[in-house]
Amino acid sequence: MTGAAIRVSEIFGPTIQGEGVLIGQPTVFVRTGGCDYRCSWCDTLHAVDSEYREEWLPMSVDDVWSEVKLLSGGVPLTVSLSGGNPAIQPLGPLIDRGHSEGYRFALETQGSVARDWFASLDVLVLSPKPPSSGMETDVARLDDCLSIAAGGPMTVLKIVVFDDRDYAYAKDIARRYPAWPVYLQPGNHTPPPPEDDSATVDIDGIMNRMLWLVDKVTGDKWFDARVLPQLHVLLWGNRRGV
Amino acid sequence: MTGAAIRVSEIFGPTIQGEGVLIGQPTVFVRTGGCDYRCSWCDTLHAVDSEYREEWLPMSVDDVWSEVKLLSGGVPLTVSLSGGNPAIQPLGPLIDRGHSEGYRFALETQGSVARDWFASLDVLVLSPKPPSSGMETDVARLDDCLSIAAGGPMTVLKIVVFDDRDYAYAKDIARRYPAWPVYLQPGNHTPPPPEDDSATVDIDGIMNRMLWLVDKVTGDKWFDARVLPQLHVLLWGNRRGV
Repeated sequence: MTGAAIRVSEIFGPTIQGEGVLIGQPTVFVRTGGCDYRCSWCDTLHAVDSEYREEWLPMSVDDVWSEVKLLSGGVPLTVSLSGGNPAIQPLGPLIDRGHSEGYRFALETQGSVARDWFASLDVLVLSPKPPSSGMETDVARLDDCLSIAAGGPMTVLKIVVFDDRDYAYAKDIARRYPAWPVYLQPGNHTPPPPEDDSATVDIDGIMNRMLWLVDKVTGDKWFDARVLPQLHVLLWGNRRGV
Repeated sequence: MTGAAIRVSEIFGPTIQGEGVLIGQPTVFVRTGGCDYRCSWCDTLHAVDSEYREEWLPMSVDDVWSEVKLLSGGVPLTVSLSGGNPAIQPLGPLIDRGHSEGYRFALETQGSVARDWFASLDVLVLSPKPPSSGMETDVARLDDCLSIAAGGPMTVLKIVVFDDRDYAYAKDIARRYPAWPVYLQPGNHTPPPPEDDSATVDIDGIMNRMLWLVDKVTGDKWFDARVLPQLHVLLWGNRRGV
């Protein structure tokens, strides 16, 4: 036995990372099931809504690792741990296992739960949720996440922006944490319903929000921010498994 | 006097960098005029074709720098030196001037001309041209560029890929230079004619090439490569000045 079971919603790839600091990088995704948040615009409800809980298989580290190895053909690459909120799963032993075989691990979480094993990651993406999500950010928890990560993984902030209030929130976060790179991402207002991953995405609407966000950032001379859309949504819409 | 005149095709921004390692980063572009190559699919012929030579104003370092300062509101950011081939212009003094005020400089060149001042750059993007361009790569020159950059700028390779031959070329380059990160970019087969920057772009075609390229890279388990489309083309088509 190498640790407690991990609740897994899906494992897929290799495909390219569609977002943020690792955009364009071949990646296998381990999406865990379950979340302590319920964002109004969640685009992975099939990994969040407890109605889908029976689909989240409890898997051993061995079983998760076998699947990652199979998908990657045994060639080391970056594994993205996402969710839901992967921070509520016992992922430390999986990371250790993968590291022993030369794989790298990136974790994406809202920063509401801090774990000691964050220090073992290669990349930590903290994605606190802006007002449009309907969620409240507990900055003390975010501080905890950043403290644990100090001296460990490359750590970045990624903030989804739908509107002016979200943008102001992103600026506040950036001011609070000036040492960390900030990635801004236009929100997808047409997230897939969990039962239909072929639902239509409003690409034009997302791209218009992207243009608006570029204008905001350059107009404000916020030259340290990076602005990137979700490339996988542009390529594959709301489809799963890519 | 701070150096010889620079032949400038256009200076614009800030907008986001659309390609490669700095994708999404607010940037002012200084596009120089003139090129020692003439790629079949060149997407900046207005800075390459000598028919447009009279539009390439010879500017002093002071004048270029005043324009960059004006556009950026005096707030330091990354300046992208592109072309044409900016390596054939005397850009060393401009870089020194900008550095003294906290600006950063990225240069994009095919690597056919090596300059000592490459060592002063913050980012060097070497973009050797694949067979579909109709150009021949002089790898000795590429070696020279990389030697000069050693210990200086962050250096990456970016290769445009249109087809299987280009892909094989990209793999050869990556094998020759294993220490440098490789960015692959699907080519735009609908580049703008120089006299018409509103010409239609075949976004679907570019995205299909992107999907093909993602499949090639993941199928080959080339997990160190990054695959990124030209984001500015997706956002603005062939329009100039954005």
